[in-house]
Amino acid sequence: MRGVIEIPDHLTPVQERIEDALVRVQRAFDAQLASELAPVGELCAHVERYRGKMLRPVLAILSGMAVSPGGEADTDGIGADLIGLAAVCEMVHMATLVHDDVLDEADVRRRGATINHLRGNEAAVILGDYLIAGAYALCASIGRPELDLRIARVSMDVCAGELLQLSHGDDFSLDEPTYFEIVERKTGALIGVACELGASVCGASRVLASSLYDAGVDLGVAFQIRDDVLDLTGRESAVGKSVGKDLEKGKLTLPLIHHLASCAEGERAQALELLARCTHPENNEARARVLEGVRETGSVEYAQRAGAERVERARGVIAGLAPSGAREMLDRLALAVLHRSY
Amino acid sequence: MRGVIEIPDHLTPVQERIEDALVRVQRAFDAQLASELAPVGELCAHVERYRGKMLRPVLAILSGMAVSPGGEADTDGIGADLIGLAAVCEMVHMATLVHDDVLDEADVRRRGATINHLRGNEAAVILGDYLIAGAYALCASIGRPELDLRIARVSMDVCAGELLQLSHGDDFSLDEPTYFEIVERKTGALIGVACELGASVCGASRVLASSLYDAGVDLGVAFQIRDDVLDLTGRESAVGKSVGKDLEKGKLTLPLIHHLASCAEGERAQALELLARCTHPENNEARARVLEGVRETGSVEYAQRAGAERVERARGVIAGLAPSGAREMLDRLALAVLHRSY
Repeated sequence: MRGVIEIPDHLTPVQERIEDALVRVQRAFDAQLASELAPVGELCAHVERYRGKMLRPVLAILSGMAVSPGGEADTDGIGADLIGLAAVCEMVHMATLVHDDVLDEADVRRRGATINHLRGNEAAVILGDYLIAGAYALCASIGRPELDLRIARVSMDVCAGELLQLSHGDDFSLDEPTYFEIVERKTGALIGVACELGASVCGASRVLASSLYDAGVDLGVAFQIRDDVLDLTGRESAVGKSVGKDLEKGKLTLPLIHHLASCAEGERAQALELLARCTHPENNEARARVLEGVRETGSVEYAQRAGAERVERARGVIAGLAPSGAREMLDRLALAVLHRSY
Repeated sequence: MRGVIEIPDHLTPVQERIEDALVRVQRAFDAQLASELAPVGELCAHVERYRGKMLRPVLAILSGMAVSPGGEADTDGIGADLIGLAAVCEMVHMATLVHDDVLDEADVRRRGATINHLRGNEAAVILGDYLIAGAYALCASIGRPELDLRIARVSMDVCAGELLQLSHGDDFSLDEPTYFEIVERKTGALIGVACELGASVCGASRVLASSLYDAGVDLGVAFQIRDDVLDLTGRESAVGKSVGKDLEKGKLTLPLIHHLASCAEGERAQALELLARCTHPENNEARARVLEGVRETGSVEYAQRAGAERVERARGVIAGLAPSGAREMLDRLALAVLHRSY
């Protein structure tokens, strides 16, 4: 978490508990994927390159801690069920990253070459499937059957969101409600379920767990909006993955949707034509002009505001939890979502 | 089942029960994938094109019937758990087909265009993921947690087999033990688990269920060997999917492994060179010469014999079940595996 948010001294004990827990999450993750077949092990080792901030495990663990008496997951420390669940969420996420990189034809992810770039699309598709199966196997081995059903249903939501997005692939008429419908499923649902189930394995009521699901979805949407903005305005060296991909793929993001909706009648056709040109190689000039237009319509600021509204709604749920270090950490994380430049 | 095997009159009641059950399996399958999002529904409709013989559901249902008293799954008919499990096995299988077609760049599957051909690789990758998630959701909703873990572990095996195969992609040194290691996982495991869990949800002991797993794996391996042979010698119109793909992809199949191992020292280099030429487009002449060589070394007959051994081992397990119509049907299916031309 250090490096993601600034941590004041009084939260150091919480921070250390999370770091210890993440080591255990990583151990559960690796143990689940271990194989006696050498080629499988080699490919799984590549997945380590994808390891990022472990946002979903962190949120699952913090949610669990925050609903436990005294802000602890239990008196002896963070229980094995919570660790397992956190690893499951990360594994599902990794699977979607590996498959997304095939779809996006991305070469770089978190400063490392992608699996598809290194080993081909075939390996990436199957490795993603292996990760999904591993996630379900780990989930089923926790021994709380209600988790199996929730994780599977949410994974269906994630895919449904991706299919909805794909069906609007080169469709520059994508509107804001459809954008949110896509993002709530594609990015929000898994982050939501990490918060929900993290809390529920630590004894939260169904109502509380469900409100944490909503908060997680809001944070996920805000996170995606920030990704949209960074893909437009960020630099590859800071973000750690390919930028400008959305424009190149003809994928409408929130700033672009707002930009198109804000153009004067006569300018809209030109803006659409510019966007179409961005999907061709050697699109630097078109891209620069789109960025200029986006600045004129204030669309980056608009997107940031929409993200801020989601973050505030999530903070409202967090504020309803009993005071604890974990709750404060959750709140700080929520605030950080919209200000990251990585 | 009619059209796959000949069914004598005294087995007509069993046949009718299976057909009724398959209608319920299909209904469970469709209900699980239903989505309020139109693009998701449209893609799922394409999956119907992939519907084949429903081998895995048939084996699950027959295994369940065969271990139940009197050869019935239960006194009131075939139970909902068995139907659900059968649908889960088919859904996992469909997911692997959809992804396999992306990997194989196949254009035709069961006489219909593949999803990747019709809608692009992106849609096919995500649709496969949606099917996998649907399979786990359906499995978890049966309410027998032990099924969740088995299905997930077997799915990991399937992927591990595919990764092992991929690591031997253009590697003409693949040997027979590795071939079987791949095929037992990639094709055998899911057929095995259909038999195993079909029996176990109908009350079979762990030992009996486990011996049915082994029988299913053997049938799956024999099935794959027959696929290998058909890819070499079949005609597209009869088989219903692209043929000659193994040669084109440089994938060593059992007849080819035997052929290479049987060549005299001086002929091996030439045989390897011919195989390498088969991976290039316009390979008709090289392909014809490989086929000729395979006939000379008796490699198709060798592969058929290896398949027959597996079938006999599976029939040994089937013969150990109490006599019933379901047992007889299982035995007839086992015999048919090696003689199909589709």
